[in-house]
Formats: sequence, structure tokens, C-alpha cells
Amino acid sequence: MAVSPSTHPRRLLPLFLGLFQGALLLFFALFVTYDEPSAQAEDTNLVANGVYSTFPFFQDIQVMLVVGLGLLLAFLPRYGFSALTHNFLLLNFSMQWALVLQGLLHHFHHGQVHLDLHKVLISEFAAVTVLISVGAILGRASPCQLLAMATCEIPVYLASEWLIVTCLGVLDVGGTITIHVFSCYFGLGVSKALFRAAKQPLHPKETPTARSDLMSLVGMLILWVFWPSFVAVPCQPGDAQHRAILNTLLAMSASAVTTVVASSLLERDGKLSLGHLQNGSLAGGVAIGAVADMAMPPVAALALGSLSAVVCVLGFSFLTPLLGRKLTLHDQCGIHNLHGLPGILGAAASVVAVLVASKDTSGSQSSLSPTGGNASEVLEGQWGGRGAGGQALCQAAGLAVAIGASLLAGLLTGAALRLPCLAQPPERLCFDDALYFKIQDQAESPGPDSSAEEGALALKEQV
Amino acid sequence: MAVSPSTHPRRLLPLFLGLFQGALLLFFALFVTYDEPSAQAEDTNLVANGVYSTFPFFQDIQVMLVVGLGLLLAFLPRYGFSALTHNFLLLNFSMQWALVLQGLLHHFHHGQVHLDLHKVLISEFAAVTVLISVGAILGRASPCQLLAMATCEIPVYLASEWLIVTCLGVLDVGGTITIHVFSCYFGLGVSKALFRAAKQPLHPKETPTARSDLMSLVGMLILWVFWPSFVAVPCQPGDAQHRAILNTLLAMSASAVTTVVASSLLERDGKLSLGHLQNGSLAGGVAIGAVADMAMPPVAALALGSLSAVVCVLGFSFLTPLLGRKLTLHDQCGIHNLHGLPGILGAAASVVAVLVASKDTSGSQSSLSPTGGNASEVLEGQWGGRGAGGQALCQAAGLAVAIGASLLAGLLTGAALRLPCLAQPPERLCFDDALYFKIQDQAESPGPDSSAEEGALALKEQV
Amino acid sequence: MAVSPSTHPRRLLPLFLGLFQGALLLFFALFVTYDEPSAQAEDTNLVANGVYSTFPFFQDIQVMLVVGLGLLLAFLPRYGFSALTHNFLLLNFSMQWALVLQGLLHHFHHGQVHLDLHKVLISEFAAVTVLISVGAILGRASPCQLLAMATCEIPVYLASEWLIVTCLGVLDVGGTITIHVFSCYFGLGVSKALFRAAKQPLHPKETPTARSDLMSLVGMLILWVFWPSFVAVPCQPGDAQHRAILNTLLAMSASAVTTVVASSLLERDGKLSLGHLQNGSLAGGVAIGAVADMAMPPVAALALGSLSAVVCVLGFSFLTPLLGRKLTLHDQCGIHNLHGLPGILGAAASVVAVLVASKDTSGSQSSLSPTGGNASEVLEGQWGGRGAGGQALCQAAGLAVAIGASLLAGLLTGAALRLPCLAQPPERLCFDDALYFKIQDQAESPGPDSSAEEGALALKEQV
Repeated sequence: MAVSPSTHPRRLLPLFLGLFQGALLLFFALFVTYDEPSAQAEDTNLVANGVYSTFPFFQDIQVMLVVGLGLLLAFLPRYGFSALTHNFLLLNFSMQWALVLQGLLHHFHHGQVHLDLHKVLISEFAAVTVLISVGAILGRASPCQLLAMATCEIPVYLASEWLIVTCLGVLDVGGTITIHVFSCYFGLGVSKALFRAAKQPLHPKETPTARSDLMSLVGMLILWVFWPSFVAVPCQPGDAQHRAILNTLLAMSASAVTTVVASSLLERDGKLSLGHLQNGSLAGGVAIGAVADMAMPPVAALALGSLSAVVCVLGFSFLTPLLGRKLTLHDQCGIHNLHGLPGILGAAASVVAVLVASKDTSGSQSSLSPTGGNASEVLEGQWGGRGAGGQALCQAAGLAVAIGASLLAGLLTGAALRLPCLAQPPERLCFDDALYFKIQDQAESPGPDSSAEEGALALKEQV
Repeated sequence: MAVSPSTHPRRLLPLFLGLFQGALLLFFALFVTYDEPSAQAEDTNLVANGVYSTFPFFQDIQVMLVVGLGLLLAFLPRYGFSALTHNFLLLNFSMQWALVLQGLLHHFHHGQVHLDLHKVLISEFAAVTVLISVGAILGRASPCQLLAMATCEIPVYLASEWLIVTCLGVLDVGGTITIHVFSCYFGLGVSKALFRAAKQPLHPKETPTARSDLMSLVGMLILWVFWPSFVAVPCQPGDAQHRAILNTLLAMSASAVTTVVASSLLERDGKLSLGHLQNGSLAGGVAIGAVADMAMPPVAALALGSLSAVVCVLGFSFLTPLLGRKLTLHDQCGIHNLHGLPGILGAAASVVAVLVASKDTSGSQSSLSPTGGNASEVLEGQWGGRGAGGQALCQAAGLAVAIGASLLAGLLTGAALRLPCLAQPPERLCFDDALYFKIQDQAESPGPDSSAEEGALALKEQV
Repeated sequence: MAVSPSTHPRRLLPLFLGLFQGALLLFFALFVTYDEPSAQAEDTNLVANGVYSTFPFFQDIQVMLVVGLGLLLAFLPRYGFSALTHNFLLLNFSMQWALVLQGLLHHFHHGQVHLDLHKVLISEFAAVTVLISVGAILGRASPCQLLAMATCEIPVYLASEWLIVTCLGVLDVGGTITIHVFSCYFGLGVSKALFRAAKQPLHPKETPTARSDLMSLVGMLILWVFWPSFVAVPCQPGDAQHRAILNTLLAMSASAVTTVVASSLLERDGKLSLGHLQNGSLAGGVAIGAVADMAMPPVAALALGSLSAVVCVLGFSFLTPLLGRKLTLHDQCGIHNLHGLPGILGAAASVVAVLVASKDTSGSQSSLSPTGGNASEVLEGQWGGRGAGGQALCQAAGLAVAIGASLLAGLLTGAALRLPCLAQPPERLCFDDALYFKIQDQAESPGPDSSAEEGALALKEQV
């Protein structure tokens, strides 16, 4: 075989991760410190209050990403270990990688990097994009491919987020555009370039069992519960944060109920589809992100939640099969239905919200306080003086940037993932933990024939 | 068939939920806004502190209801999807319905409804009653029946809670009387009127398996961990809340240990019953609610926790079979043992606590501070000047109101649930997810005969 | 049989627990009260803020111990109920027992015991030691043996903690030495004395299945997420707590990635071992405890996390088999690899950190603020004027005390656990829930032969 021992597929993973951990240590040793401890009591109070106001949110988000999302992805019956472990590994790797990249950027401008909880949180958000994108190729990609994908996606995300939020001034507190739309089209781009025109037939291990679907359902419920923390943590403390929490609660509650309606109507015999429930109930949380802290009436949050659930369920029923047929686009978890469509809907909602808010300076539907000065002045102040039309245009431009940048970068990344050294598993060995985990229990491991083939593969790799 | 297409059982669910979501949107559009943003910095701080002091408790309660209670109900081996999903749907529907009803009431008195986290929390408490009551008929009722039940229960609960807390001035911070006792007897009333004298034979799918019992055990543990948040969130911040947390911790800890003692003594060979563990460990949390923030010695919380666990386990061993035989009363989850008996015990404890506290104005067993003025004066001030005897009478009256109102309303509701359009499943198809969910995995779906009958039922419904 | 009815194995558990609950009630009735309620508004604010700053951490820790640790221990396929329930029971029993012992000590010095959340938290920490030690003998000990072990371990822990922290002044905010090292060697001592030189053959029910390993993996993830709360809760609010959170996050993130590297390198075909993942990912949290709040550069936390994961995985691969062969030491969960080795590493790190911090009074690697006075002065002030060398010596002495005291006490306790009345299960009935739980589902209960033997045992016990 042409593969040299150092790039041996089974050895590439520890080699790559080991080198990365070494580089991380070096970077931290050279550039990263903690803030100097505060000398005065009021500073200490400030730090303590900062911890108390951020840390509970941070823990909620950790539970979402590590436990909730991990379980949600565990719907493949023989792929539970991989779903949980790869999700966990990618979260940690991506977070560290984002810390390094942000630190480097910061270092060149300001010298020493002072680590704090806020910087870790921002890196977590970056990592979320990877965890979402993975959904498009779940079960058919090796850990090496996933790590290579994370390595490419994080810098592109950071650049795109900087362009969208800092340059364009797009309002997107819950990451609807910067995180969800971006990661969705990145993942779809990767999937398209990785699998090309190959039609992916239904794999026998791809069908969820009652047990794996139950795990996934519990994962959805955990995500559903903690989603308001995800949206609200970057908000201004006070009214904006309070509003963001309430809007997210309303949107997700409407999503949950509407998903049942939509799924029940679409399935021929009125039964519910678990795939719809696992995704549609969360669609409201994706869509509300861009407008959660804006001054809009509560009914808008409810409507957006309902609409996004409908869009998500319709996507599963009609768009995903269509994209599969026409574009031979493979989307294992349906991230286009959960993150793409509701994300675009949320971005559109933010355009409308900006336009409506500027006209509607008083009356029952605006919460903008007249005591805070003329509302449109306030808004224009918020928007860097570009006016409602300008801001609406910016929101739309942000969406376009997110889609364009992510699709392009995703396609390039997907092409790179075809490198043989990344060890994409052959179709027959997909969706199976036994390829990556030492499973002791023979009764639950794959049948004799696939073991034989796996043995052959292992042999081939050892040449 | 006489059933018209619009009330077709399989279509009634989406129709009803869809109409409800529409009405909800209309109501919110017309009447609900957010508070105007605070103009001053101190107001902003106030709002921010309100969020920080309430939101972590709120999230804990969400985890309890969505994940913990959902898993606890998932002890039926083939009914896990239904348990989790119906619980989730009912929580959202009931919460929205409670928001509407409270908003309407408020609107007629004060005009525009200002939504805040506190109002959402109160609606969640209302929804809890539905989630508890469902336990009596779990597995034998259709989703339409459950929604109809929620539609009836929420207004009755709101009226009963207003009568008990606002009119009678009953002290019940953790909802022992207003939530647990009320929802228990409502559920039992529904069960009695719905199943009448029909003896429910043991269904082959009713016996938990090791796997489903494990899920339920995890659900119990989640509820156990977060219960103190449920009891403490409505308390006055400061000492009362601190005391409520500690009392709940002590009661639940005593419950956990005592349940093992009681279960081990009652089972012939000294083995533990999982049903006892899943319920008895939580009994202390139910009982402590009415007295959690009162000035009583810690030993009272321990004793109440132990006693309620004993009562709960005895209820499972003796009372439930007795009620089943004598009254043909069907109580699937044993809500009478977990919510009814410990709730009554807690109400009795509140009578005693009020009487003792008034006599005991000093000494080691009273925490009432002499610096805060004469204790009995303070207490009478708290109790609207009606004295300890009067307050004790009110507590007892509150219990009577809760039991009477809920039983009556439950019986009427249960009779209404017999409407054919609500599509109660026939006995053979009970306790099976396959009736409500599209289950892909044939290996884990019900056997051929029940599938055949189900097919027949579906055919019949399509006439 | 010589066993009298009152010490009948099946009846000893409820008898012992019941007597203990009675004694607990008596103790609380006589000695324990709540703090007097605060008379002034500022006091109320102080109490309220105390609750808000501690309670979320406390709940996180409860989730870790009750749900996370319970699931982590549920890797034995037929022992899930026992793992979750015994863990839950031991937590409650040990916490109550620690409250009593601390209360007694306090009472003799200061009179009445005023219960608060802080005291409960300290008792929880004491209970953690028992939950860890149990790992050494999981599946082979009866509940009576576990309770007897808890009864012995708690007072020894309290004495050892007092000696290490109060007398020696050892810095160990996250309990690396006082909790993890102590409980590990206590558990190993118990195991050695209980099983002596008997070689424990591989039991057929000892091998995890895919399902039980998945539960355990979820438990690990829950522990991983909430570990920072465990380390940070005893810290000074402000910078120290902020630093402790960040250090723990970094260490655990490095552990997670490094575990994958190490496990993948050690397994012959590059596959991951679930046992490595379940333990190695947490090793960083164990090791960081002693230094988490110290003024050290972030890179140290990363390095410590990586190193401890490597040590943990190497321990599983080489040391555990070696100890089993040479010392016939049985360590069911590998607590020596997760708590012993990383704990010793963490203690060594604290020695280095103390020495380095004293030399390094300025420069980029020290976070000690010059505005806060000369750093070494500050440090010496912290260390009770004993200087860096003295403090380093104390850290090492603390480690020696923890190992020595726990080993000795563990050996004695293990010898006591051999008492026949504690009903150690015979080898064939080990690792099986059916011995302790009424399992309704026959299909999932053990086969006919073991049932027969169990029946014989039950008969024998009833003589």
C-alpha cells in the first residue's frame, strides 16, 4: 500500500490530536494568562457578580451541547457511542481551536491574551457550528474527517462572524444567521463535495429503533429546556435579556405544539413521526435567535415559532426527498430542515422586525419607551445611524454572506475530506460503532459477514 | 359511520390544536405586550437581578417537568414515546391555556397584559396539575382525551387556587394542597367517570421491563434533585427561601432512606420494589410544600419526609388494591399514593405547624426572632389578623375545597371524555406507542395480531 | 442456622436504616435549629444573595452525584438498578450521618447547631468519599456492607479532612487530596481486606453491553459538564472562583482530547475503549482540584489535564492488571486510575505550584497583582507565615496523611465487612439486580439455574 506508516488511518487520529494538544500547550504557555486579580473589593464584587450572572447560563449551554445534542444525534441504533463521543470530542477540539485562533488575532493587536469565561463562551459558540454541520454527514464520516472539517470550519466561521456582526452590524443575538444558517450550509456543502453525485442508498443500520429514538427524544427535550439560556446569554442584562428569555420560551412552546399539528396532518394515518418531533420542536429556537431581544410584541415570537415548526416539518416531508433526488444532496440528520429553513425564516423576521420597529414608535405593539427618547432616534442610535432601511438591508446582506461563505467553504472542505488518508469508511461499515470502539459484547456487535469485511479492512490498513 | 370527517378521530387532534394555536395568536396579538423597558439604570438592575434570581429556578423546574417527569412516566415498556411526548405536549398546551385564561381575567380588570417570567412560571404551576392528573389514566387515554382533560382542568385549577390562596389565605408555598392534592383527586375523578365500574384487567404490555424501569428510575432521580427549586421559587427571598430549600432537602433525604426501609419490610423476601422507590422517594417533596417556608424546627421536615414515604409505600401495598377492588378505581401510576396521601399529610402538618408556631413564641424550637416583635403578633399580622386557630381552620378548609372541587370537576370531566369523538383506544391497543407514532423498526413494534386489529381500527376510522 | 432473626440478612438493612433514621430524628429534635430570621433588610439581602450564589452550584453537584455518578456506575448490564439505587441511598445516608457527626462536634463546642446550606454542602462532600470508595467493590457487596462501610468511612474522612486542612493548612479547594485520594485508598483497603487473596475470576455478568455502556457514557458526560461547579463552590467569590472555573474547564477539556489520543494509541487496532473514555475524560477534574484557585498560568491547567488523562489510561492498561496479579487487588471500577493516580498527580502539582508561585513574583506567568502588595508576602500571609517551602512540605504531608489514614482505615473496615450478618452475596449471585430488587419481567431476569441457587439462598436465609 502507498500509505506510509505515519499517515496510517488508524494512527492519524492520535497523531493529529496529539500534535494539536502540543501546539495548544505551547500557545497557552507563550500568550495566555488570566486577568490580574482585582485589588479592590468592588472589583472583586464585579467579578463575582459576573460569574454569578454568566456561569449558570454557561452550564446550561454545556448540558445542551454535551448531553442534549449528543443524545439527539444518537438516533442511529448502532452508532450511539460514536454520536456521543464524536460530538464530545469535536466540541472540545473546536473550542480549543477557536480559543487559539481568537487568541492569535487578539495577540497581534493587543499582546497578552487574558482568558476569561466570556472568551470561553465565544469559543463554545464557534464550536456549535461544527457540531451542527456534522449532522449532514453523521455516520458516513471517520473521526479524522470530522476533525479535519472542524479545523477548516472554525476559522471560516470566525471570519464570517466578524464580517457579519462587526462589519455589517447585523443584529443576531441568538446566532440564527451567524451560527445556524452558516453551519447548515457549510455542512451541506461538505456533504455535496464529499459524496458528490453518489446516491446514498438506505443503509440497513440507518433505521432508528425504538430504543435509539427514545434516546434522541430525550436529547431533544434537554435541548428544548435549555435553549433560552443559549439565546439569552449574550444579551444585555436587564430588559433585553428578560425579553430574549420570554421570546425564546414562547417560540419554542409554539413550535412544540405546532410540530404535533403539522406532523399529524402530513402522515397519512395521523400518526406522529419521531423525526418531526425531534426537530420541529426545536425549530422555534433556531428562528427566534435573530430577533429575540428586539422590541417586538410577544405574538411575533409565537408566530415565528409556529411558522418555523411548519417549515421544518414540510422540509422533512418534501424538500429533503427533493434535494436528494434532484441534487443528490445527502443530509443525514436533516440539518437543512432544523437549521437552514428556520434560520432563513428568522433572518427574514429580523428584516421585518427592524422595519416595523422603526415605523411603530408608539402604540400597543411597540415596547419602546417614550421616556427613553424618540424611538426611531434610539433605534438609529443602536444601528450606528444607518436607519431602519439600512439596517434591514444589512440583515439581508448578513444572511447572504452566511450562506455564500459557508457553501463555498463547505464545498472546498468537503473536497479536502476525500483525501484517502482521512479514511472514509466504506459504505458497508458505516453507521456502526464497532469500527471505532472496542465493543466487548459480541451479541450486540455486527454480524459475522461485516466483521469479516472489517477484519479485511483492518488487515489492509496494516499493510 | 356517523363520525363526520371534521371530527374524525385521527384528524381531531391537529384540528383542535391548530385552532387553539390560532386563538392563542389572536389573544396575544390583541392583549399581550412586554413591560416597557426600564428607563433608569436602577430599574435595569432590578430587572436583571430578578432574572438572575428566578431564571435558574425556572430552568430547574423545566428540567423536572419535561425530562424528569417524562422519564418517570416512561415505565410502560412500549409506551415511552407516548409518555414523553404527551407529557411534553400537555405541558406546552396547558401552559399556553393558563396564560390565556390568566390574561383574560387580568385584562378585564386592568387592561393590557404585561408578560413576564413570573406569569409564565405561574402558568407552569397550573400545567403541573394536568401532568399529575394524567398519571391516573396513563396508557388508556388518547391524546385527544388528554387535551380535553387539560382544557377542563386548567380553569378549575385557577378558580380553586384563587379560592384557596387568595380568598381563604391558605399558606401553601410548594403547592401541596393547591397542586398535588387537587390534581390527584381530579385525576382519580376522571378515571372513575371514564372507566366507571369496568374492572381493568392486567394488560400484557403494562408490566415494566428492566429497561423501562431504569428510565423511570432516572426520571425519579432528576425530579428528586430539582424538587427544592420547585418548592423554593415562590418564596420570599432571604430566610424564608433558604428555609424552604433546607426543609425540602431534609424531607426528601428522609423520604429516600425511609422508602428503602418500608419497601424492604413490606416485600416478603426483603427485596426492594421499583415502584416504591420511584414514588416513595418523592413523597417528602409533596408533603413538605405546605410548610416548607414556615418557622418550624428542622426535625419536623425530617419527620414529615419519613412519614410521607411510609404512607406512600403503604398506599401502594394496601390502599391501591383496596380501592381497585371496592371502588373499581383505576390509578395507573399510583398518583393517590404519591400526591394524594402525602398531600393530605402535608396539609395536616400545616395545621399543626400553624397551631404550634403561635403557642411557641420563643425557645429552641421556634426560629421566630424576638427582635422582629412579638411572635404571635407577627404571625397574626401574616395571617390577616385571624389568629392561629383561624388560620389552622383555613388550612383545613383549603384542603376540603381542593378535594371537593377536584373530585367533582374530575368526575364531570371524565364523563365528558367518554365522547366517542375523543377516540379512546380499545383495551387491546392500550399501552402501545404504535397507535400514535410511526415506528419504523418492525422488530420492536407489536406482534402481527395486534397490528391486524390496529389496521382494522384505522380502516374503520377512515370510513 | 446460628443467625438470629433480628440479624437476619434480609431484615438487617431495614432494621439498621430504621434505627438510624430514628436516631437522626432524635438528634435533630434535640440539637438542630435554623438560624434566626434576619431582622434587618440588609441581612435579608445577605441571606438571599448567599442563596443565589451557592444554590445553583449546589444543584449542579446534586445532579453530578445522583444522576451522573449513578449512571456512570450503571455499566454493569444487570446491575443498573443496584448501581443507581445504592448510590442514591448511600448519598442520603452518608450526608445525614455526616450532618450528625459534624453537628455533634459543633455542639460540644458551641451549643445549638444552626443548619444552613453551607453545612449541608460540607456533608455532601463527605458523602462523595463513600460514593467513590464503593467503586472498588461494586457488584460484589451487599447493601448492608455498603452502609457499614459508609458508617466507618464518614468519621475517618471528617477526622482526616480536619487534620489535613485545618491542622496542616493544606490548600485543596477541589478535594483532590482530601476527597479523591482519600476515598480511593480507603476503597482499595476495603477491597483488599474484604476479598483478601481470593482471585476474582471474570464473572459472566461483569462485561458491559452496548446499552449499559451507553448509560455509563451519558453519566460521564453529566459529570464532565458539572465538574467545574464541584471545584468552584468552596472558592472565594471573585477572582479565585473565576480562576477555579476556568482552570477546571481547561483541565477537563484537555483530558477529554488526550484520553482519545491515549486510548487510541494503546489499543492494538486504534479503536477506543469505552472504559478509558468513561474515566480518562474526568481525570483532569480530579487532578486540578488542589490547584484550581491558585495563581498559576492557564497552560498549567491544560498540562495537568492532559497528563492526568494519560496516567489514567495507562493505569487501566498496565497498573490495574499488575495490581490484580501481584497484590490480588480487586478494583471493579478502576477508582485507582480515576481518583488515585490523578489525585496524586494533582497533589504533586500543588507542591510545584506553591514553590513556583513564591519564586515567580512578577512576569507574565504570574497573575499575582503587584498592586496587591509584594507577592511572596501575600502568599506567606495566605500560608500562615510558613513560607513556600513549608507550604510545599505541608501539601506533601497532607497527601501522605490521606493515603496512610485511608489505607489503614479501609483495611480495618474491609475486615469488619466480612461479618456474616452483612450478607455478602456468593460469587454466582453477584452483579445481579435480581438479588435486591423485585423484578417483574421474567424475560430479563437471570436464567433458571441462578434463580434456583438464589431460591436456595433465600431458603437458607429464612431458616
